[in-house]
Order: sequence, then C-alpha cells, then structure tokens
Amino acid sequence: MSGQWGKKVKYSIFGESHGRGIGITIDGLPPGIKLDMDFINGEMQRRAPGRDEFSTKRFEGDKVEILSGYFNGYTTGTPLCGVIFNENQNSKDYDKLKNLARPGHADFTGKVKYSGFNDYRGGGHFSGRITAPLVFAGAVAKQILFDKGIVIGSHILSIGNVFDNYFDGVNLKIQTLADVLRKDFPVLDDLKGKEMKNIILKAKEETDSVGGIIEGSILNLPCGLGEPFFDSLESNLAQLLFSVPAVKGVEFGMGFEITKIRGSKANDVPYISEEKVLTKTNNNGGINGGISNGMPVIFRVAMKPTPSIAKTQNTIDMATGENSEISVIGRHDPCIVLRALPVIEACAAMSILDFI
Amino acid sequence: MSGQWGKKVKYSIFGESHGRGIGITIDGLPPGIKLDMDFINGEMQRRAPGRDEFSTKRFEGDKVEILSGYFNGYTTGTPLCGVIFNENQNSKDYDKLKNLARPGHADFTGKVKYSGFNDYRGGGHFSGRITAPLVFAGAVAKQILFDKGIVIGSHILSIGNVFDNYFDGVNLKIQTLADVLRKDFPVLDDLKGKEMKNIILKAKEETDSVGGIIEGSILNLPCGLGEPFFDSLESNLAQLLFSVPAVKGVEFGMGFEITKIRGSKANDVPYISEEKVLTKTNNNGGINGGISNGMPVIFRVAMKPTPSIAKTQNTIDMATGENSEISVIGRHDPCIVLRALPVIEACAAMSILDFI
Amino acid sequence: MSGQWGKKVKYSIFGESHGRGIGITIDGLPPGIKLDMDFINGEMQRRAPGRDEFSTKRFEGDKVEILSGYFNGYTTGTPLCGVIFNENQNSKDYDKLKNLARPGHADFTGKVKYSGFNDYRGGGHFSGRITAPLVFAGAVAKQILFDKGIVIGSHILSIGNVFDNYFDGVNLKIQTLADVLRKDFPVLDDLKGKEMKNIILKAKEETDSVGGIIEGSILNLPCGLGEPFFDSLESNLAQLLFSVPAVKGVEFGMGFEITKIRGSKANDVPYISEEKVLTKTNNNGGINGGISNGMPVIFRVAMKPTPSIAKTQNTIDMATGENSEISVIGRHDPCIVLRALPVIEACAAMSILDFI
Amino acid sequence: MSGQWGKKVKYSIFGESHGRGIGITIDGLPPGIKLDMDFINGEMQRRAPGRDEFSTKRFEGDKVEILSGYFNGYTTGTPLCGVIFNENQNSKDYDKLKNLARPGHADFTGKVKYSGFNDYRGGGHFSGRITAPLVFAGAVAKQILFDKGIVIGSHILSIGNVFDNYFDGVNLKIQTLADVLRKDFPVLDDLKGKEMKNIILKAKEETDSVGGIIEGSILNLPCGLGEPFFDSLESNLAQLLFSVPAVKGVEFGMGFEITKIRGSKANDVPYISEEKVLTKTNNNGGINGGISNGMPVIFRVAMKPTPSIAKTQNTIDMATGENSEISVIGRHDPCIVLRALPVIEACAAMSILDFI
Repeated sequence: MSGQWGKKVKYSIFGESHGRGIGITIDGLPPGIKLDMDFINGEMQRRAPGRDEFSTKRFEGDKVEILSGYFNGYTTGTPLCGVIFNENQNSKDYDKLKNLARPGHADFTGKVKYSGFNDYRGGGHFSGRITAPLVFAGAVAKQILFDKGIVIGSHILSIGNVFDNYFDGVNLKIQTLADVLRKDFPVLDDLKGKEMKNIILKAKEETDSVGGIIEGSILNLPCGLGEPFFDSLESNLAQLLFSVPAVKGVEFGMGFEITKIRGSKANDVPYISEEKVLTKTNNNGGINGGISNGMPVIFRVAMKPTPSIAKTQNTIDMATGENSEISVIGRHDPCIVLRALPVIEACAAMSILDFI
Repeated sequence: MSGQWGKKVKYSIFGESHGRGIGITIDGLPPGIKLDMDFINGEMQRRAPGRDEFSTKRFEGDKVEILSGYFNGYTTGTPLCGVIFNENQNSKDYDKLKNLARPGHADFTGKVKYSGFNDYRGGGHFSGRITAPLVFAGAVAKQILFDKGIVIGSHILSIGNVFDNYFDGVNLKIQTLADVLRKDFPVLDDLKGKEMKNIILKAKEETDSVGGIIEGSILNLPCGLGEPFFDSLESNLAQLLFSVPAVKGVEFGMGFEITKIRGSKANDVPYISEEKVLTKTNNNGGINGGISNGMPVIFRVAMKPTPSIAKTQNTIDMATGENSEISVIGRHDPCIVLRALPVIEACAAMSILDFI
Repeated sequence: MSGQWGKKVKYSIFGESHGRGIGITIDGLPPGIKLDMDFINGEMQRRAPGRDEFSTKRFEGDKVEILSGYFNGYTTGTPLCGVIFNENQNSKDYDKLKNLARPGHADFTGKVKYSGFNDYRGGGHFSGRITAPLVFAGAVAKQILFDKGIVIGSHILSIGNVFDNYFDGVNLKIQTLADVLRKDFPVLDDLKGKEMKNIILKAKEETDSVGGIIEGSILNLPCGLGEPFFDSLESNLAQLLFSVPAVKGVEFGMGFEITKIRGSKANDVPYISEEKVLTKTNNNGGINGGISNGMPVIFRVAMKPTPSIAKTQNTIDMATGENSEISVIGRHDPCIVLRALPVIEACAAMSILDFI
Repeated sequence: MSGQWGKKVKYSIFGESHGRGIGITIDGLPPGIKLDMDFINGEMQRRAPGRDEFSTKRFEGDKVEILSGYFNGYTTGTPLCGVIFNENQNSKDYDKLKNLARPGHADFTGKVKYSGFNDYRGGGHFSGRITAPLVFAGAVAKQILFDKGIVIGSHILSIGNVFDNYFDGVNLKIQTLADVLRKDFPVLDDLKGKEMKNIILKAKEETDSVGGIIEGSILNLPCGLGEPFFDSLESNLAQLLFSVPAVKGVEFGMGFEITKIRGSKANDVPYISEEKVLTKTNNNGGINGGISNGMPVIFRVAMKPTPSIAKTQNTIDMATGENSEISVIGRHDPCIVLRALPVIEACAAMSILDFI
C-alpha cells in the first residue's frame, strides 16, 4: 500500500527496476493543460545517469509514454498514466547477489516484508530508478504551478564536508534559481562546486561513495496554504521527501539550528511594505503554524551516501543464515545528490499542487 | 481538512484553545483493550504545565472524558472519542492582541487562511494546547504497542547549545528508557541537565525563550514494517512529527550528519547472532528502504524556541495594515521541550500502530 | 474504521446509543458560514421521536452542543465537533436482552465482530440514534448548499403497499419540496398519506412494524459534478445512503424499472431552451456517466420495517449457544420512515457538498 | 479524482477507449500469490464482445500485460500494474459525432466537466471498455478469495420483462454458481433464457436496445465483515457497483420488496445448527447492521438499456448550441447485461477483499 499519495491530485506509482515498466498515474489534473513535453523531457534528463563524469555509464532510457489522460496535446482531466518501459537492464549483474543482503539497502527488510517474493533485481521496487516516474509527475506539477507564478528550485548545499552558500531566505529571487538550474553542477559558489566534484571523484576512485544536502525553495507561494496539524505544509512535504530513497533528514527554515537561539532572535518580525506583509528575517522558512506566509519556503534534505559500493563489505547470506561477504560489482554512482535535485523538486511541486 | 490522519486506525482531532472543548476521535482500535487510565493520566500529566519551576503557572485541567467506544473498562472497537473540556481559560489575556500578529505564531497566516473567522484566542486551533488530545491518543496507542513488546521513549537531547549524550543506537535498552522517563528532567547526563535548566531559567528572567532537540526511540519493532515510497516509516512518522507546533526539523539515525561520511562508513553491516539479524552500527536508525530492520529506530526532532515572549517585538496590526508593536503579556513557557516529550512519543506510537 | 467519510469535507462520527455522547466532527467547512441554529434544530426535530402519534414516546433530547470550529456565530474553518449528550436512556430496558440476538438487528454480527466487547445497550453504535449526528452534519451542509441555490427535499413514496405519487423528474419545483416539507406527514397526495397512517397504526396495534420507500431530490445542481468510475454521483451518494441503518436498496431515476424498457425510450433526449440544456424526459435521474447534467437528481431509498417488535420471535442465546425466544419489550417505532426523511436528505447534502 | 478506490488494497484505474492503453494498478496485494493466468484470461473473455450472436462484432483484444508487481509467476506484494494496449479501435466511427451529444451518454456532461478537453472518441474515459481493467482486478481478487473458500457468482435475473428464477438466499450452493457460470447464457431456467435471447434479437433488429437485472451472490463469507455506518458491506459494494456505467439501482436481500412486508415477516430468525448460526430466511441478504452474518450475501443490480442505438434520435449540437439529430451508426451492443456479469462479480470481489 505504498504507491498512492495525494488528496486533490492523487498519484499511484508502480514498477520494479527490472520489470517491464515503471510508471505513475496522476488522477485529478485539471483539463486543458498544454503539457510542455520539452520541459518534461528536460526534467527527466536532469535525473538520468550518464550525463557527467561522475555518474554511472549506464543509459536508462527515460522516455515516458503517456497511455491516457492526454489528447491532442492537452490533459483531458481524466487519469493520466505515464510509463517508462525498461530497456538496457543488465539483470545478470544481480543474479549472484540474490541471497546476499547489500548493506544499507532494503534487501533484507524487503525480503522479510515480502516473504521472499519481491523482485530483487536492481533493488526491485526499492530502486532509486522508481524516482523517474516521480520526476515525470513533478514536471507536470511544476508546469501547472509555474503558470500560476509559483517557482520551485534547488541547489546542492553540501557534498561531504564541503558547503556551498545558503539560499537567502529573505531576498531569494527567481533569477537565482534560474541561474543555478542552468549549471551542470548546480551550486551558488562555483569554487565550492569544484571542491565538491573533487570529493566525488576521490570517492569514485576509492570505490566508495559520498552523500550531501540539497537545499530547496518555493517562491511566490500565496499566503494561507497548508492546514494546522496533520496536513501542515511541513507534514505534507516531508512525507513526500522521506519517500525518496536515501533521505535521512528534512528541515525547514533554520531547521535544527533554530534550536540554538533565543525566541527573540528566532521570531520573524512581520512588517508591511507596499501593501504586502513581509518578514525581516525568515528563520521559519516561510511557514507559520503549518501555513505558508508568503515568504520563500526554504527546506533542506539530507541524502546519505549511496549504499552500493564495490568495496568489499561484510554481510549475511539470507538463504543460509550465515555471515558472508559482498562486493557489489557493477555500475554505481559515487554520489546521487546531483541526480536527486529534480526528484526533490518534484516532491515540492506535488506537495504544493495538493494545496493550490 | 487538517484534523484527520491514519489508515488502519484513523484519528480526527478538533478544538480551539478557548473553545468549549478539545478532543480526538480514534476509529479502528481493536475491541477488548483494557485501557490503563492511570497510565493515560500519567501521560497527560507529563504534558501539562505547572509541574515544574519553569513552566507557566496556569493549570490546564487535562482530564479526558471518554464519550464513546469504551464500555465497562474495555474498548468496544467502535470509534472512541475523548474530550477535554476547557476550563480556566483566561480569554481576557488575548482580547487586546486580537489584531496584532504575534511574531512566530500563526496569527497572520491563520487570519488569511480563515478569512478572519478563526478563533484567535490563545492561538485557537493552532495552540499547542491541541497537542493534549494527541497525547491521549498516543497513550492509548502506546499501551497497545507495549502489550506487543514495543516500547517508545525519548529524552531531551539539547536545550540551546547544551547537548546531552546521544542514545546508543546499537545497544539501547528498555531499562535506559524507563530510567530516563522517571526523571523530572529526562536527560541521560544529569550534569548536562543542570546546565540546561540554567539556560531555561535565564531565558525566563530575560522574558525570552529557548528551544531544543528531542531524541526519540522505538525498541523491539518487528522487521518489515513500513512501505517503500509514500508510506515509508520515515514518511509516516515525519508527517505526524511535523504536525506538532514548533517542529522545524526531523531526522533519522545519523540524520544530517550522515551526509558527511563515506558510504563504507555509513552502511550498517548486517550479521547474524543467535538467529537474529543485527547490524554492527545503526547509522540508518533502524530503517532501510523505508522499512524497519529490527534495530532500534532512532530519530530526532528540532523544536524552535517558544514564539510567545513578553519582550516587546515589532509586528503589524492586521486590522489597520500598519506596523506596530506587541508585548505578549501573560503566561508563557520559556521552553516547551520538556512538555513536548510525550507529544513526540505519541506521534511515534500512532505511527507504529498504523503499521502493526 | 467506519466512522470517517469524505474528501473535501471530512466527517468522523462516533457514539453509542447509551454511551455518554454521540457526535460528529466536520473537517473542511469553509470559514465564515453563519450557522442558522434554528434551521439546524428544526432538522433535528424532524428526526426526533415523540412528535406524532406513531412514534415511540421516549424523548431523546437531541440538542447538539458545538465544542469547536464555531466562534461568534460563524464557522471558523477548523474542525467543528457537535455532540449530543445522552440523557433519558433507560438502560434497564436492555439488560435482560444482553445475550439474546434480536432478529434483524446487528446483535449477533456485532458481537462476533467486536468479540463481545461492543456496547450492546440499545444497539450501541448500530443504533438508529447515531443518525442524529448525521442529521446535524446534513443540516450544516444543506445550509451551505442552499446559499448556492441548491435545494434538497424528499417525501414518503410508500408505506407497505400504499404508494404516493412520484416526483415529476422533469418539472419538479422548489415550491413542491417546500410544500411537502411543511406537512406533518410529507406526501404529495394526502389521501394516500391517510392510508399510510392507517397501515402504521394497524402495525402498532399488532406489535409489528412496516417499512417504506423514501424518494429524494436535489434541484439546481450545476452540470458537471461527479467523477466517472469510483466517485460517480451515484457511487458517492449510495455509499452514504447505505450507511443508514435499515436501508436495503437505492436507485436513481427510473431505477429498477428502467431495465424493462427499450433504449429508445430510456434515453433522455437533450434539447436547448433559453440557453439551457434540458432533457425531455429524466429517466436517468439527472445523472449521466456519473456526472450531473443539470436536471433534477431523483433517487429512491428502500427502508426495511423496524426490526424491534414486541411480538415474540425465535432467536438464539449467544451466551449458551442454544435456541431461545425473545420479546423486545420497550419503546418501539412501528415505522421509522417518517423520521428517516431528514437522515436521507442529510446524506444527499453531505454527498453534494463533497463535490461542490 | 475518480480513478482511486480501496483501503487495504488500493486500485487506480486509467484509460480512454481510444487512447494508447487502459489499465489498473493494484496496490496492497499480498506477496506470493501464484496468479492463475488462465482463470484471469477466462474472466476477460467473459467480458469481451464478439463471442455470441448478440454482441458487436468488434474484437477488443483484451490481453492484459503486467508491467510490475509480478515476478516469476508470483505477486511480489508491490504495486501491480496491468495494461491493455488499445488495438483495433476505429476512431473514424466517432469523428462525425464529435459535437453531437449522444442521448443517454456522458457526452454532454463530460464536455462540461472537462471543459471540452476530454477524449470524446468512443466515450473516452466513460466508455464501457474501461470495465476491462476492472475485470482484471476482480479476477485477481476472486482468486485470492477463492483460496479462502469465498465464492462469488451471478446470473442474469431479467432482460426486459422476462424474469429468471431468483437465487435461493438460504440454500444457495457453490455448485449452482458453478453450473450457471458454465452456460453461454447464464440463467437458472434455460427456457426463460431462450425468451430473453429473443427479446435481445428483436431489439437488435429494430436497432434498439434492452436492459436487465443481474443478481449476484457471495458465499462462505465469514461473519463479522463490514463496519457500521460509512463502511458497511452494502455501502462499500454499492459504491463500486454504481461505478459501473449503466447501473441505475442496487439492492440487497429482498431489496425494495422488503418495504412491503411486516417486520415479523422481514426479520431473519437466527437458529443454531451444528454449531453454526444460520437464519431461517434471508431477507436481509446476509448482512445485518452493515456486517456479514455468514448467510449468502445476495444483491441485485439494475442495468439500463445500452444508450448507443442506431435509431435516429433528437439531440443537441454542443458546438453550435442548436437542436439537431443523431444516428449512432457503428457497432452497438443491443444488450450489455451478459457481458456485465464478470464486471459485477469483479466489484463484489474487490469489495470483499477490502475487508478480509
């Protein structure tokens, strides 16, 4: 029962990494939206591996075929199902590993949960590949939001110990998001970006991996979105963000750092300027009482280092019940943070679309 | 549409701080559970103010009256509604502030969202008081889980810049949770606890406030709970945690720190011991691929400093549209972290009960 | 998990006939609705027994107390909880029957489902009394719909074998609904009404009961409400109607009779008149493809005769597992159809409000 | 937002009659079910047209391709998506009708609802063709239920004015259901069946159509399934049944006829026989208080005559806003009742699976 989410617009995701196809059904889109297929394909490209010198060389062929809900270039308003048919999946890579639990992965938990019947190839339904349909749905959502003036963007805040500058939560402009989006390595400070790339290369050489933090932002959100308690903006968005494999932390505004300062400093003081209500600071990340206040929504997502590494690791053999060793030979990303940017943005878009 | 949550057990929360009553309906409890009213009242007491030298002196009278779903000492299996009737609410405290937006609160966002019709007194439906019914529901859930051997506990990890020791994610024992629960100020290292209390007192004297981090744990969770993607254990629990007012960050296992180390270090290596599968480390907080692996689930919640402070702050007058000042005279908690422990635990209990 | 329903506006119902209180939480109402308490009380009165010479003499005291979501005469937009505290419940009436399954009731099925822990008094959570909170919620919904020009009304179509005239599905006017609402015995043809009353009286004298059919209507529904498949207008409304105890059949338009005629006769031919699209006939009851077409929505609900009768009946003793006899001495309605009119209308109102 | 349904097992349906594909995602199936593809194909065949002398000659090619959730012959427990790719769709048949509203169809309501963007070809998302994925999902559900001893079956109760015998609600045996399933024209009394076929042929010759009633049954349901109020067995099943195009009425047990008899006659008297609780009659259709009592569940569904007929009918031109005429030339079924049997059974299976 994991594949469904949403209230106004409902999503149903499906697929295994090595099954026939992965996809998502989007139910509740308004009719008459002229889908910008170039934009959607561009978002899929941001996620696909093989574009840069870090990622795996495998080509995943992320072409989405729309089976329904789309006619003559416009959404019909009926459920829209987009499918990515799997090609170029080298299933043999995974045969030998069938009974060995790859540390950090869901091999063991998945085997227990599904009584051994899960498709283990490439991580099956747990594979990061299943984020591809998410990006597709997010692209559609982003387009609809953009038409309403709402813009979503992100950058790599950190890789390992190297940190980029933070977004300016008070003055963040759409132009900044557009500029960083255009870069191959989306950071604000390119020098820091260079350091980050070195860290990734080093990890790759050492058959290891690194993680990082993504900082996201939503601009021009109207005031008043979100509900107190169970459907606060943070609750809704965090639920989606934590759905993404490898996410281990989510924070808004100052996040965990806000716990270290006084209330008098933390409170964002409101003032009126040109008939708009703004706040002098934005430590709350644009959200008060679970509801948007019109200031930029700022959030951060912690992504752990890729679990699949070629380095030999101890593990267990789930068939024999004995301790063993594993070396995940094959095609690995030393760092998925770059590819995760459109996935994180997709979550933000889906979340906001559920409130608008 | 904020008040409903849950799949197997469904909750519906209602109430304003100064309305007739606040409460929650719990729908889907198994029949025949002998509710331990002493335990439930104890949990309500942990949350209530006025117990220690820091909190506000106001007495909130958190006696829960059960209107349905409970007969002859046992749950009936039909919807159980628990209500706390409001007494001792000094509404006059809030009259003068009606049009002034208290910084850090939802006064402005709430007014926009509800077109000015929200009950503003004491924060209305946004009040931290509405966490009382949550604690009640959590107490019922905890009792049911405890009967299955699952134990939930927490401690104050930090207040301001002072940090307690962290839970040992590999070896955490129930006894540790029981010990810390018994303390008036639940920390592992009492010397640190003393420092923290000083920080709170100082803030109180300066009519200011401080925040902190709560670390929670769930022990003896069976392996296999949670679903990949939209209903992962992290997604489900984070959605509830972010529903609690003042929460600005949630992380699992090493959380944000995991982004700074290599994959070879981050991966929790599984091994078999006495026919159980354990991991040598627990950086993932007991969750892989959104599914519990049997190790302790460890998570952390960032709570911002209480927004209500007597210090004068700038703000806006929502009626006139002009800048103004506000001093929230009245009864304030300089720090709500201590009182939030049972609320955070309640979220964890409700979340797990939805999977068992 | 029975108590929750709704998408845009979510309801959560609770209560046992002899518990402390029965009620409903309504989550998602727009803020700023000035509740017409006279109207709401009037609807509660239509449902309450003791008003006419047929019904039971017990007085149920259906005064709704609003605990939240309502401030200074207006809805706040936050969850609104209405509770009816139980008084005047003679629990002793039911003690002797504790182990005897009253035929036609849910005594046996409820005991199995709830492992014997259900509150059996007066039918507990299965009692028709729990329709009182439904009427309250329906009254609120009706008021909101009325402000949008949408009117809901009904009449008793039949009692036993005596049938009133049917609503004119093409020309039905609001005035007709208003006229029939004003009557003590809401039928179109008062002579038929007199026959019906005789049937009810005779059943009462013979310590037996009768059932009947209610015909309902929704006027001025905009075209386009409802969704194909799982959330068609018929699906949505039928789900609510079948929630009402004693309902055993639901039909729309010609209903079961439409199966006996040809397609050329059944099809409602559309035509344009004064820029509105109308149909010459209305055999489909105002709904095509699950979506409203602007014509009056006409539906019918079959209510079985009241199961509780003083006549001695065979049954089983659920404690001993032996066959036995039962005579349900006490206060019984020989016919609940009259009292069910506002309940049926409430379902219609709640259903439409979920689409508007 | 029409495509999603279910609580324990969640379904998401999509597709337009002339789009690329129609399908359904089933989320929540237990892992390890060995799908019987022969059985599933058999169910698809029961629904497909072209098998007998009445139906349309078009061949719809209902081969389901499973894209996910199915591995090595077993369900994986992850979301299972089945797609039927559209072939042999003669879109030209519908071009001329683009602006003419076919009476009885959703052309007009769909155009209004979807602002003219809906795929109008062949009825688009409103097409009866979309019941094919429902039959697939129902087949999977039936298989799971059958393994638990629960059997679902149906027969044509009536076509036009000709009625078959009714199911014996007290003594109905699995063998009866098996026997009727084997027939090309599933009725209990073959002589009546012959009369029915004549009625259909006559309608076909006169380019008209007829409707009928389907009677369904669920045997060996455990006692205790269903919830009082919003999720009663009747509510749940009726919601699905009314999702099927052309359904205009649903009743349980005696249905509308129960309104004509006395309570003393309507009540099903329970008695104990061989340690099982049975009832002497079964006027309530196996359901008391919304909960199954162990007796056969009996229900009936009214299906209106097929709206698409070649006979010329008056209508409106939705583009010009003028009255017009239409003759739906092409391939029409004079009666869809026979083909609807597996669809109705699918609804029953999906409903029960949601409770088990």
